[in-house]
Amino acid sequence: MVSLDDLNAASRHRFVEVLGGVFEDASWVAERAWGSRPFPTVTALHQVLYDVLSEAGENRQTEFLNGHPDLAGAAAQQRTMGEHSTAEQAALGLDRLDAAGFDRFSAMNLAYRERFGFPFLICVRRHTRASILREFERRSANSAAAERAAALAEVFRITRLRIAGLVQGPGMPAVGGGLSTHVLDTARGQPGAGVRVELFVLEPEGAELVSAGTTDRDGRVPGGLVPDGEPLRIGLYEIRFYIGAYFADSGLPVSDPPFLDVVPLRIGIAEAEAHYHVPLLASPWTFATYRGS
Amino acid sequence: MVSLDDLNAASRHRFVEVLGGVFEDASWVAERAWGSRPFPTVTALHQVLYDVLSEAGENRQTEFLNGHPDLAGAAAQQRTMGEHSTAEQAALGLDRLDAAGFDRFSAMNLAYRERFGFPFLICVRRHTRASILREFERRSANSAAAERAAALAEVFRITRLRIAGLVQGPGMPAVGGGLSTHVLDTARGQPGAGVRVELFVLEPEGAELVSAGTTDRDGRVPGGLVPDGEPLRIGLYEIRFYIGAYFADSGLPVSDPPFLDVVPLRIGIAEAEAHYHVPLLASPWTFATYRGS
Amino acid sequence: MVSLDDLNAASRHRFVEVLGGVFEDASWVAERAWGSRPFPTVTALHQVLYDVLSEAGENRQTEFLNGHPDLAGAAAQQRTMGEHSTAEQAALGLDRLDAAGFDRFSAMNLAYRERFGFPFLICVRRHTRASILREFERRSANSAAAERAAALAEVFRITRLRIAGLVQGPGMPAVGGGLSTHVLDTARGQPGAGVRVELFVLEPEGAELVSAGTTDRDGRVPGGLVPDGEPLRIGLYEIRFYIGAYFADSGLPVSDPPFLDVVPLRIGIAEAEAHYHVPLLASPWTFATYRGS
Amino acid sequence: MVSLDDLNAASRHRFVEVLGGVFEDASWVAERAWGSRPFPTVTALHQVLYDVLSEAGENRQTEFLNGHPDLAGAAAQQRTMGEHSTAEQAALGLDRLDAAGFDRFSAMNLAYRERFGFPFLICVRRHTRASILREFERRSANSAAAERAAALAEVFRITRLRIAGLVQGPGMPAVGGGLSTHVLDTARGQPGAGVRVELFVLEPEGAELVSAGTTDRDGRVPGGLVPDGEPLRIGLYEIRFYIGAYFADSGLPVSDPPFLDVVPLRIGIAEAEAHYHVPLLASPWTFATYRGS
Repeated sequence: MVSLDDLNAASRHRFVEVLGGVFEDASWVAERAWGSRPFPTVTALHQVLYDVLSEAGENRQTEFLNGHPDLAGAAAQQRTMGEHSTAEQAALGLDRLDAAGFDRFSAMNLAYRERFGFPFLICVRRHTRASILREFERRSANSAAAERAAALAEVFRITRLRIAGLVQGPGMPAVGGGLSTHVLDTARGQPGAGVRVELFVLEPEGAELVSAGTTDRDGRVPGGLVPDGEPLRIGLYEIRFYIGAYFADSGLPVSDPPFLDVVPLRIGIAEAEAHYHVPLLASPWTFATYRGS
Repeated sequence: MVSLDDLNAASRHRFVEVLGGVFEDASWVAERAWGSRPFPTVTALHQVLYDVLSEAGENRQTEFLNGHPDLAGAAAQQRTMGEHSTAEQAALGLDRLDAAGFDRFSAMNLAYRERFGFPFLICVRRHTRASILREFERRSANSAAAERAAALAEVFRITRLRIAGLVQGPGMPAVGGGLSTHVLDTARGQPGAGVRVELFVLEPEGAELVSAGTTDRDGRVPGGLVPDGEPLRIGLYEIRFYIGAYFADSGLPVSDPPFLDVVPLRIGIAEAEAHYHVPLLASPWTFATYRGS
Repeated sequence: MVSLDDLNAASRHRFVEVLGGVFEDASWVAERAWGSRPFPTVTALHQVLYDVLSEAGENRQTEFLNGHPDLAGAAAQQRTMGEHSTAEQAALGLDRLDAAGFDRFSAMNLAYRERFGFPFLICVRRHTRASILREFERRSANSAAAERAAALAEVFRITRLRIAGLVQGPGMPAVGGGLSTHVLDTARGQPGAGVRVELFVLEPEGAELVSAGTTDRDGRVPGGLVPDGEPLRIGLYEIRFYIGAYFADSGLPVSDPPFLDVVPLRIGIAEAEAHYHVPLLASPWTFATYRGS
Repeated sequence: MVSLDDLNAASRHRFVEVLGGVFEDASWVAERAWGSRPFPTVTALHQVLYDVLSEAGENRQTEFLNGHPDLAGAAAQQRTMGEHSTAEQAALGLDRLDAAGFDRFSAMNLAYRERFGFPFLICVRRHTRASILREFERRSANSAAAERAAALAEVFRITRLRIAGLVQGPGMPAVGGGLSTHVLDTARGQPGAGVRVELFVLEPEGAELVSAGTTDRDGRVPGGLVPDGEPLRIGLYEIRFYIGAYFADSGLPVSDPPFLDVVPLRIGIAEAEAHYHVPLLASPWTFATYRGS
């Protein structure tokens, strides 16, 4: 991490050294932005960088977009992309696709590039594999103008996240989301303590465990299911609450097998920068949930 | 079907001809019961038949229990069992197990028979494959006396169901259960009409579709998910409500993807002779369920 | 009650004798309708009668409207109105207003009559005193044309109810509403049996008990809180559930005083011809309600 | 406020000057406790003071109990009690009872004193007038020994609160409770912002407004309905939520009058030192509440 103060005081060389990779190999973006120092906030720094690109003319932009690797393409497999892209695609498992997955992405990349003249860009850190496939399909139906705008909007999101990870200072951009839960034992009017909770993301290949924990005395999973900070990946999730085991020890009347044992809540996350609070209100015979706050 | 009146007026020969197969090949049970005619109710007829067995002495009972085929055994595969057993085991798919499933049941049958001296008996029509495996395991830990009582209790349930299917008359035994649902749109204060609902049973091999339907103007699936009549098989189920599609047309604010799309309710059925009513109260952002009545 | 068949076969004299009072002293309405026999349904009979009035011209209508007594006026106090009006106003207590209430209605009647040239007409059987006062205020702001239409719409409702009470036959008009409840004990997954339930209507003078009962084994108040048949009077209501007493005997953990004792549900009824089902889902520590079906 | 450090360093004279009034005129309690300095926590200080009383012998205790004024008695009316008692009884309105209320308390005081030989003692700051009357009745049925113990337990609570208000230092006794709420708009999946909320206490003389506020952007009433700090008075309360006005502006389908307008939640508070969180989950057609955490 570098401080905003340091960047504001940096030479052009140093400035470009630090920020040159934010816009994927296009160090000219940082070079041009250097003249606008000092930046009052980190958000303003990012906006100025982005404005350089957005005012650069269509040819320059197309060239810039073409400087990006294919999503889940050969560069990802061979890890020959820029450092940022490598880490981002790896975190989602895009470098470990099996042959069928690789072929699927390859075919979509090819068709997209043919149609629009640049590779498919998306802010990978805001997405699950399932939502990326959905966006691929949805955006492939766009007009050329709409899709150029969509690609640039993704560049905005990608670079905002990179800046937030690189620069420390006042006015940080709001890039984080999170997911938390809370178990209430509505039969006894108390927090549901000691309940195992698991979070799965529902990917095309099946459910993958994201996190697991046990509720504390206040009925909450310490740290949340997805801690705030990173974007909350857009997609489908399932939270599983092991309330059968919890109520088995409660002295409350239950059946065998219990009416409610493992309660799955299947939810869709649409806002990567929001905090979702999804409580479970439960007795052995009823449960309720809602998007809370 | 034969009427209770006819049986009350029947010759011993005719009586045994009709009822002889109810207690699996043990026509002596029907023969002895004949003398107790007339029976005021079908329930009383069954009780008298059962009492003959239950007062017959331990040796006779052991012999009777040994007259039963192994559950999911070679006789089931080759369909060489009595007509009743064949149909009952087939309805649950016990005649179509793959090699692994067949081996699993064979090993359990062998161990059980070695331990208790008679084959494992269970009222198949009240169970799913999952709950049968669970009972196999649970009952294998019984003492000899407790397990003999458990086996006879199953004979009671098996024959009660057979009698209920054979004889028509006053005082029918209560053998039926059922499962129904009801969708309420709590954002608009009206029944949730046109919602697709699917019922799955969760078997060891995976989820199997039991029934599916669409809610009517009153928010109910016509006929219920499992109509009353037959026992409601003990086990785990999942009801899936396609409320995302329902609310997509509602004009209510939703997200993309929707917070709630396909809502799975996972429930355990413990009482085969009960009616379970499991409503869904839902808006695009909350849902609740409970065991209703 | 008279049958539709009888009316279809009746002489003009007999027809007018039976139906002449339906349109408050305006026997000419029945006289003109007689020629349209036979009527296939009771609903059709009412429609034809109403059409006579609605096509009678403005002067005739004004004269007809003026044939009605003031609501809660001197005629109500002295019971000198037509038989129908007397019963309808008495059922709501409009003949028993205290001096202040009488003065309030008198002043509103006077102002209304001055403004529109005929007395304020409303289908009393569809209303509470509170909702009549609300309608008085709301409709007093109408234009002359809108208010004439509103008055005739009330005549339609008044006479539809009278016809439904006088004539029996196919195609009865749907004039009835009702209110029912259902108590679910969500801590134990069973109907809440033996719970006292009271229904109050919230009138300007305070809460008045409408009905009370105790839930049966299925958690329902036998007959409902307001049985279907009559219109469900538009207005505000409070249902009180004595669940503290119910859970005191349950063995479930409760506090002293109980967190929930008498649970009041305050609801507004807007559709007089609808059935409202308002369940209570409760444990000692939570409750929920909704407009059900 | 005085610090625990100061008290630990104080002379006997100064110590008694500060704490002498905590045990109502019985400065000998403080005098004897002085020798036990230093006290590691404020809780320990209070315990030592209380132990002096509790080991003082029955005669001394009776004398001590008799040093207290009658609850809501002549001393309260004329404000001739100790400073602490005056403030505590005034806060609950016990000094402003009307003639009937005064007579009611007088009669109960007289009967109690006759039966037990000392005046009725209760920690007024933990109670509503309704719960005091209930305790009066309940405790009047106690045996002499049980009631002496009950009276001393109240002295413990009274003096713990006084100490917590007088002395500042580590290990403060936990004397505070509170009441908060949270409005969720479950039709739109967002906090219910801008909802008026009122809290009433239900006293024998009727409902009295305790606090009122409007929910903020997160659906909470800033500061809570009863801020933590003081005990939450034991008794019955009603929270009123003006959700009809909130949903009138929502664009969601509502009726006229609205099905839900002012929603009253009636709850009993039993634990004066607990925080009660009582959310409202509501759409225009449903609501739910529960004791949360």
